[in-house]
Amino acid sequence: MSIFEQRESAIRAYCRVYPVVFDKAKNARQTDENGREYIDFFAGAGVLNFGHNNALMTQAVVDYIQSDGVLHSLDMHTTAKRQFMEHFTETILKPRHMPHKMQFMGPTGTNAVEAAMKLARRATGRQEIVAFSHGFHGMTLGALSATANQYFRGAAGIPLNYVSHVPFGCDAQQTEVSPEVGMESLTQLRTMYADSSSGVTPPAAFLVETIQAEGGVKVADKDWIAALSQLAKDVGALLIIDDIQVGVGRTGSFFSFDDLDIDPDIVCLAKGIGGLGTPMAMNLVKPEFDQHWLPGEHTGTFRGQDISFVAGDVALNYFDNDNLMQTVKQLGEQMRQTLQPVIERHAALNLSGKGMIFGMDTGHGDRAKQIVQQCFDAGLLVSACGTGGRVIKLIPPLTIPAADLTAGLAILIDATDNVMMQEAA
Amino acid sequence: MSIFEQRESAIRAYCRVYPVVFDKAKNARQTDENGREYIDFFAGAGVLNFGHNNALMTQAVVDYIQSDGVLHSLDMHTTAKRQFMEHFTETILKPRHMPHKMQFMGPTGTNAVEAAMKLARRATGRQEIVAFSHGFHGMTLGALSATANQYFRGAAGIPLNYVSHVPFGCDAQQTEVSPEVGMESLTQLRTMYADSSSGVTPPAAFLVETIQAEGGVKVADKDWIAALSQLAKDVGALLIIDDIQVGVGRTGSFFSFDDLDIDPDIVCLAKGIGGLGTPMAMNLVKPEFDQHWLPGEHTGTFRGQDISFVAGDVALNYFDNDNLMQTVKQLGEQMRQTLQPVIERHAALNLSGKGMIFGMDTGHGDRAKQIVQQCFDAGLLVSACGTGGRVIKLIPPLTIPAADLTAGLAILIDATDNVMMQEAA
Amino acid sequence: MSIFEQRESAIRAYCRVYPVVFDKAKNARQTDENGREYIDFFAGAGVLNFGHNNALMTQAVVDYIQSDGVLHSLDMHTTAKRQFMEHFTETILKPRHMPHKMQFMGPTGTNAVEAAMKLARRATGRQEIVAFSHGFHGMTLGALSATANQYFRGAAGIPLNYVSHVPFGCDAQQTEVSPEVGMESLTQLRTMYADSSSGVTPPAAFLVETIQAEGGVKVADKDWIAALSQLAKDVGALLIIDDIQVGVGRTGSFFSFDDLDIDPDIVCLAKGIGGLGTPMAMNLVKPEFDQHWLPGEHTGTFRGQDISFVAGDVALNYFDNDNLMQTVKQLGEQMRQTLQPVIERHAALNLSGKGMIFGMDTGHGDRAKQIVQQCFDAGLLVSACGTGGRVIKLIPPLTIPAADLTAGLAILIDATDNVMMQEAA
Amino acid sequence: MSIFEQRESAIRAYCRVYPVVFDKAKNARQTDENGREYIDFFAGAGVLNFGHNNALMTQAVVDYIQSDGVLHSLDMHTTAKRQFMEHFTETILKPRHMPHKMQFMGPTGTNAVEAAMKLARRATGRQEIVAFSHGFHGMTLGALSATANQYFRGAAGIPLNYVSHVPFGCDAQQTEVSPEVGMESLTQLRTMYADSSSGVTPPAAFLVETIQAEGGVKVADKDWIAALSQLAKDVGALLIIDDIQVGVGRTGSFFSFDDLDIDPDIVCLAKGIGGLGTPMAMNLVKPEFDQHWLPGEHTGTFRGQDISFVAGDVALNYFDNDNLMQTVKQLGEQMRQTLQPVIERHAALNLSGKGMIFGMDTGHGDRAKQIVQQCFDAGLLVSACGTGGRVIKLIPPLTIPAADLTAGLAILIDATDNVMMQEAA
Repeated sequence: MSIFEQRESAIRAYCRVYPVVFDKAKNARQTDENGREYIDFFAGAGVLNFGHNNALMTQAVVDYIQSDGVLHSLDMHTTAKRQFMEHFTETILKPRHMPHKMQFMGPTGTNAVEAAMKLARRATGRQEIVAFSHGFHGMTLGALSATANQYFRGAAGIPLNYVSHVPFGCDAQQTEVSPEVGMESLTQLRTMYADSSSGVTPPAAFLVETIQAEGGVKVADKDWIAALSQLAKDVGALLIIDDIQVGVGRTGSFFSFDDLDIDPDIVCLAKGIGGLGTPMAMNLVKPEFDQHWLPGEHTGTFRGQDISFVAGDVALNYFDNDNLMQTVKQLGEQMRQTLQPVIERHAALNLSGKGMIFGMDTGHGDRAKQIVQQCFDAGLLVSACGTGGRVIKLIPPLTIPAADLTAGLAILIDATDNVMMQEAA
Repeated sequence: MSIFEQRESAIRAYCRVYPVVFDKAKNARQTDENGREYIDFFAGAGVLNFGHNNALMTQAVVDYIQSDGVLHSLDMHTTAKRQFMEHFTETILKPRHMPHKMQFMGPTGTNAVEAAMKLARRATGRQEIVAFSHGFHGMTLGALSATANQYFRGAAGIPLNYVSHVPFGCDAQQTEVSPEVGMESLTQLRTMYADSSSGVTPPAAFLVETIQAEGGVKVADKDWIAALSQLAKDVGALLIIDDIQVGVGRTGSFFSFDDLDIDPDIVCLAKGIGGLGTPMAMNLVKPEFDQHWLPGEHTGTFRGQDISFVAGDVALNYFDNDNLMQTVKQLGEQMRQTLQPVIERHAALNLSGKGMIFGMDTGHGDRAKQIVQQCFDAGLLVSACGTGGRVIKLIPPLTIPAADLTAGLAILIDATDNVMMQEAA
Repeated sequence: MSIFEQRESAIRAYCRVYPVVFDKAKNARQTDENGREYIDFFAGAGVLNFGHNNALMTQAVVDYIQSDGVLHSLDMHTTAKRQFMEHFTETILKPRHMPHKMQFMGPTGTNAVEAAMKLARRATGRQEIVAFSHGFHGMTLGALSATANQYFRGAAGIPLNYVSHVPFGCDAQQTEVSPEVGMESLTQLRTMYADSSSGVTPPAAFLVETIQAEGGVKVADKDWIAALSQLAKDVGALLIIDDIQVGVGRTGSFFSFDDLDIDPDIVCLAKGIGGLGTPMAMNLVKPEFDQHWLPGEHTGTFRGQDISFVAGDVALNYFDNDNLMQTVKQLGEQMRQTLQPVIERHAALNLSGKGMIFGMDTGHGDRAKQIVQQCFDAGLLVSACGTGGRVIKLIPPLTIPAADLTAGLAILIDATDNVMMQEAA
Repeated sequence: MSIFEQRESAIRAYCRVYPVVFDKAKNARQTDENGREYIDFFAGAGVLNFGHNNALMTQAVVDYIQSDGVLHSLDMHTTAKRQFMEHFTETILKPRHMPHKMQFMGPTGTNAVEAAMKLARRATGRQEIVAFSHGFHGMTLGALSATANQYFRGAAGIPLNYVSHVPFGCDAQQTEVSPEVGMESLTQLRTMYADSSSGVTPPAAFLVETIQAEGGVKVADKDWIAALSQLAKDVGALLIIDDIQVGVGRTGSFFSFDDLDIDPDIVCLAKGIGGLGTPMAMNLVKPEFDQHWLPGEHTGTFRGQDISFVAGDVALNYFDNDNLMQTVKQLGEQMRQTLQPVIERHAALNLSGKGMIFGMDTGHGDRAKQIVQQCFDAGLLVSACGTGGRVIKLIPPLTIPAADLTAGLAILIDATDNVMMQEAA
C-alpha cells in the first residue's frame, strides 16, 4: 500500500482520476514516474496558463532564489513586489484607465473572495450578497456561502447565510437554461429592491464570474451581465467579478471582461496571476471602496510571495504585446472547429466556451467520467465540472504547442465517439 | 509617490512599521535596497523557523525546478509529495504513534483551520465550536469566527456565529489573567454540558493553541490543557490544536504539545511546515474522523505546492536528530536569561514564552509601538501582538547565529530601557 | 396630559389615527366617551367578523362565566373545548373531508405562524421557508422573518434568516404588479430546486396568504396559487396557508381557499375564530405532519381560553347554514358596485378584493392618510395598509346592517373625492 | 374515541397528566364533568393568582360585557384601558418611583419577551442577549432562543442564535448548583467584556427571572442578582426582568424584585396581570429606552383586551392595601413549615421557594411523575418542572382557603412518602 493510501486523507480526489505518480512537467505535458507522458488540457485547474515550468519564469525564479532575494515578506515592501506592481500598473491597469488599488491577501482564490465580500459588506453596511446558480468561489466559509454546488455546501456543517443565489444569465451557447431566465431574474430583483414591502433589500454586492468555469463553462450573456452591472450601480451594490479561473489571458485578453460593458468595483484574481503555479491572490479594488479598510484588518501570512511576484512579472510580459492573445484566439477557434463535428454527431452533446476555455456538456456525469477515463488511458488529462460532473472542461495552457493541441483534441474526440457509440449499442 | 502609496491597498500594515524596501535576506537578516541590514526577530510572522533562504533548501528547490519537477499538482500524486509524506510519517508521526492522516488544502493557515472546523462539525453533527479568548486562527469567515480579537472580527460585516469564546487557561508566567480562571471556566462548561436545561450543549470541537502567539504569547497551563483534552473526550467533542505558529520546532520539539498530556484529534499546521517560506498547509486528522470526508469536498487550487514539499522535506531533516531542538532550548534559555534583568528593572513589564518564542508584555500598545520603532531604527525587526498590540513578540529563526541573537537582544533591551526611562521622566 | 400620553409606550399607533377614547361598541358601531358614534369598517383589524358584542355570543359567555365554567385551562380538556372541537369538526372539517388535527397555542396569530414554521422544519428536516412579497405573518421573531414589510423587519435588531421572499402572484385586479411575475417566479424556483448546483434547495414550507390583507388586499391569482400548491407537493415542502385575517367567513365561505384548487398541509387561524374578539389561535395540521410533535414541545400559557371556545362555538352556528355567507357575497358585491364609480373617476385609484374585504389603492401613503382622516372626522373608521400605507382597507363586520354599510361607503366616497379634487386643484 | 383523541394535536400535554374533562372551577378548586373536585396547586401555570372565577372580577366583567363595553380594541384608547392604566400607575408605579412606560403587545408572555428583546437590541445597537441556564421565556423564536431547556429548543428546527446562556446564580436553598458558580460567571463575563481580544462583547441585555419557575423554582441569590444589575449598568446593557410567572403578588409583593437591589430597565408581565385568566401582556419600559420605538413597529392583534383590563383593574385592588400580601407571606410560611418534615425524612428531596411558589426537587423526573400521578388520583393538581421534570412546583392561588391549602399539602406529603417508600422497598 502506497504512502498515499496509508496516510493521505480520504478527501483526495484528482489522484483517484489520474492514478499515477507524476514526476516531471513541461509546458503542456506531464510525465509520470514511469516515463509516460500526458498531454495536459487541465493546466492545474486553470493555473498554468503559461505552461508547466515556463522556462522564462523558472530562469527568473532560480536567479532570484540564488541571489537570496526575499522569498516571504507578508505585506512588507520588497523590490520584487515593486517590480510586479509597477509592471501590472503599466501593462494592465493604466491602458484600461482602471484606478483600482491592489490588495494582496492569503494567496488562494478563496481568500481573495473572502476579502472582497468583507469589504463590500463593510463599505455598504449591508449584509446580503447575491451570487449565482452554478457559481464557484471557494471553500472557506464566506466563499463557500457563495458557491452554489450542493456537494460542497453540504460539507459546511452549519447554515450558509447572508448569500442568496439567483439564476445566472447564460448566453445562447448554453442550452441547459433558457437565456431569458437570467433577464427575468434581474427584472424581478430590481422590482423587489425598489419595494420596501417586498421582504428583500438591495445587497452589499453581486458576486459573479463572467464564465462559470467549475459551473460547467457557462458563458454569461453579454446583455445580461451589462444589465447586472447597471443594476448594481442603481441599487448601491458593488459588482465583484471573480476572474480567478478565466482571467489572466484565458479568454483572449487579460481580463475576461475586457469586451464586456461592465464596471467592476472589485476584481478577484488568483490562479494564473503568479505565472508559474506558485500561489498568489490579488484583488483590484476601486479606491472609494478600498479606503474602508483599516491597516491589517484582513491579514494572511503568505500574502507576500516573492517567487510569485517574480514569475508573475515575467508573465506580464505576455501582455506587453498582443502576440499570445492572438494565439489564444486562433487556438480557441481551432478547438471549436475541431470539436464541432463530434458535437453535431451526438445530439446529447453541447459545446460552450470562449478564448481557450471550453466545456463539452455530455448530459450525464457518468458519461463524462467514462470519457475522462478513456482520455487518461490514451494520454490526455481532462477533468469534469458542472452539475454532477457532466461537463468536460478543456483548458490547455495558452502556450500549448499546436501539435499537442491537435493530438489532445483527437484523443478527446475518439474517447467521446467511443463512449457515445457504446451507449448507443 | 511610490507605487506602494499609489496603488497598494490601504490595508497594508507591516510596511508602515518597517518603511523600507527589502531586497535580500539570509538566515536571520534582511537587507533593504540601500544595503542596510536588519536582524530579524520576526521571521515572517513565525514562518521562517529555518531562516531566510536556508541554503540546504534553496539548493534542493533550485535543483527541483531546474529538473522540471512538477510545481503545481493539486491533489495529484507527485514524487515530491510522496517523498515529503514518507519522511513526515517516519520522522514525525511514527515515533509518536500518531495514526493521523495528512490532509492538504489551500496552503494558508486559515484554510487549514476552516477544514478542521468543517470536519469536526461533519463528524459530530454539531454546529458550535468553542474557541478561546485571545485566540487567533485566521481571517476567512469560518476561522475569523474563532479569532477573538475585535479588530479583526469587526471587519466581517456580518455576525460571527457558531463559535463561542471562553477564557484561555494561561500558565503562571502570564500575570494579566489569573490561572484559576481557565479551570473555573472548564468546570462551568462541564456542568452546563451535563445539564439538558442549561441552554448549552456540547460542541463539535474545542479549537485551541498551546501558545497563543498573536494573542500575546500566552502559554497554556499544562494542567488546564490536559483538563480541556479530557473534557473534549468526555463530551464527544474533537480537540483541534492550531499549531500553525508554534509548531514545527518553535518550542523545542516538533509539535508544541509534545510535552503536554493531550490527545489532539486534528492538528493544524502551516507557516513553518513548508521550510522555506513558500505556502503549505496540512491537517493531521485521526482516521476515525478523516473518514467523514467525501472525495474533493474541501478543495483548493494550491493544495499541492511541490516547492514546499521539497523544501519541507529538507526541513524534516532537522528533526531526524535532536541537534536543532537542543539548540532551540539553549537559545531560548539564553533569551530568557538575557531579558530577565530588563523585566525586573521595569515593574510594568512581564515576560512569557517557551522554546524560542517569547512575549514581552509592556502593558500598553503605545509603549510597545515605541519600542518596536526604536528597535527598527537600531536595526532589529520585532513586532507587536496581543490586546491593543501591547506585547512584543520575539520569534527569531531557530537557526539564528548566536551573535545575531545576542546583538538583537541588546538592541531590544536598549530600546526598552530608553522608552521606559523617557516615560518615567 | 392624559394617562396615555404620560404612560403609554411611544409604540402606540391606532390611537394616533383615532384620537378619542372609545367606550361602547355594538355590531358595526363604536361609540366614544362623548357619545359620538363611528361606523366601523375596520372590525378590530379583521377580528370582529360577527360584529362588536354579538348578542348571541355575549349571552353565551355571560352564562358561562356566571356558571363558573373554567376560564383558563391550558391544554387540559374542558367541556367548553370539547363542544368547540366537536362543532368545528362537524361543521367545518368533515364536509370538506379535511383530516386535519387541531393545535391550540398561544392565542395570537403570530404564535400560530411560529408553530406552523417549527413543525414544517421539524417534519422536513429543512430550514428555509419561502414567504412572499407583501406578506404579513406577525411580529415575533420567527413570524417576523416571514413578514415582508421593511418597517417591521427593521425593528428586529438582528438578521432575519431562514426565510426567503419571492414575488406574490397577484390576480388581475391588482395593477401594481404584472400577473406574469408570480408565475415566472414559480418556474424559476422549480428549476432551481431541481438543480443541485443552483445554490438553492427545496424549502421546508411555502407560507402564503390567499389574500394579502395587510399587504394591501392583494388577491392571489387562482392559477398561481394552484401552481404553488403543486410545486410544494412536488418538492416535498409543506403548504402553510395563513388564513388568520381572511378566514372565518371573510371571503364568503369559511376558509378563504374553499374555491381554490390547493391542498394546505397547515392552516393558521386566529382573529375571527374566537367569535367575540377574545384571543384564540388554532392550526389545522394534517395528521402525517402533526405526528412530528412531541407532547408539550410548543407550549403557551393562554392556549386554552374557554371564553373564546364558547363564543367561537356560537360563531360556528353561522356556518351551519349558508345564510351569512350569502349575505357576505351580496354585501361584497354591493361594496364593489358602489365604489366602482369613484375608482373610475380617479385614474390613480384601484380596487381589489373578494367577499367582504376590499382594498382601495390610492397610489400614495399621504393621500390614503388624508382620506382616512376625513373618514374619521365624518364618523367612519377605516385603516391604511400596503406599501407605505397607500391602500385603504375595508373590512366591515360581516353582520353589518345594510344601512351602516351604505352610510359608511358614502362617507368613504365623499372623502376620496374631496382629497382627489383638492390634489387636482 | 373522544374528540380530543380524534382531532387534537399530538402536542397536547397537560391533558395527558390530568386525563379528565374539567367543567367548573372556583378559587382553588376545579371540578371535572363527573363532579369530582380537585384542589389546584397549579393555578393555570401561575396565571390564576386570584383564583378561578374570582367573584369580584367575574361580576365586573359580566357587567362590562352586558353594558356593551368595547371588548377588542388593539391599541386604541378605551375607557377600560384608561382605568387600568391609571390604577396601575397609582398603585404600582408611583409608590415605587418607577418612571416606566407601559407597552401592550400580543397578550402572551412570549410576545412580551420578544418585544423586550427587540427593544434592547434596537436601543443598544447590539445583537447578543445573555440569558441563563434553566431560564424559561417562551416558545416563539426570539423568546425560545432565550429559553434554556433543550426539549423546547430542539423543536425550533433552526439554530437559535444571538442569545448565549450562562449559569444562573441560585441562592443557598438550591443544592443542585453551588452558589459560587453564579458569581464566578459574572466575574468572568466582566473580565471578557472589558477585553477587546476576548472574543466576547457586551450584550444588548441580560434577560433574567428572579425565580426560575419553570426552571425548577430556582431562587436567585440576592447578591448575585444585584451584581448582575450592576454589571448590566456598567457595560451599557439593559436589565430585563421576566416577571411573567412570579410577578403580580406571587412572592408576597407585587413585583418579585421589590426586595431586591436591582434596577430593571424592562419588566415583562403577563399571566396574572389580567386577573381572571384572560390574556394580557405588558412590558414596563424606562422612558429612555421606550423612545426608541416607532409607532406600530411591534404590533399584535389582541394587544387591547378589555376584559383583561377590567379584571386586571379589579386585581389591582388587592395591592391597594397589604392584606393579601400579608396572607401570601403567612401561607407561604405555612407551606414551608408543613413540607419541611417530609423533606427531612427523605435525603433525596430539597425544597426551595419564596412567597407562595415552592419547588420540591425530587432528584428524578420519574419520581416526580409518580408523585404528581398519586396527587392527581387523590384530588390534587400539581405539575412537574425543572430539568427532566424532577421538581414538583407548588403555586396555589394566593387566595386559596386555608383548609384547601392544608388538605392539598397533606395529599402531597402522603404521595411523596408513598413514592419514596416504594422506591426504598
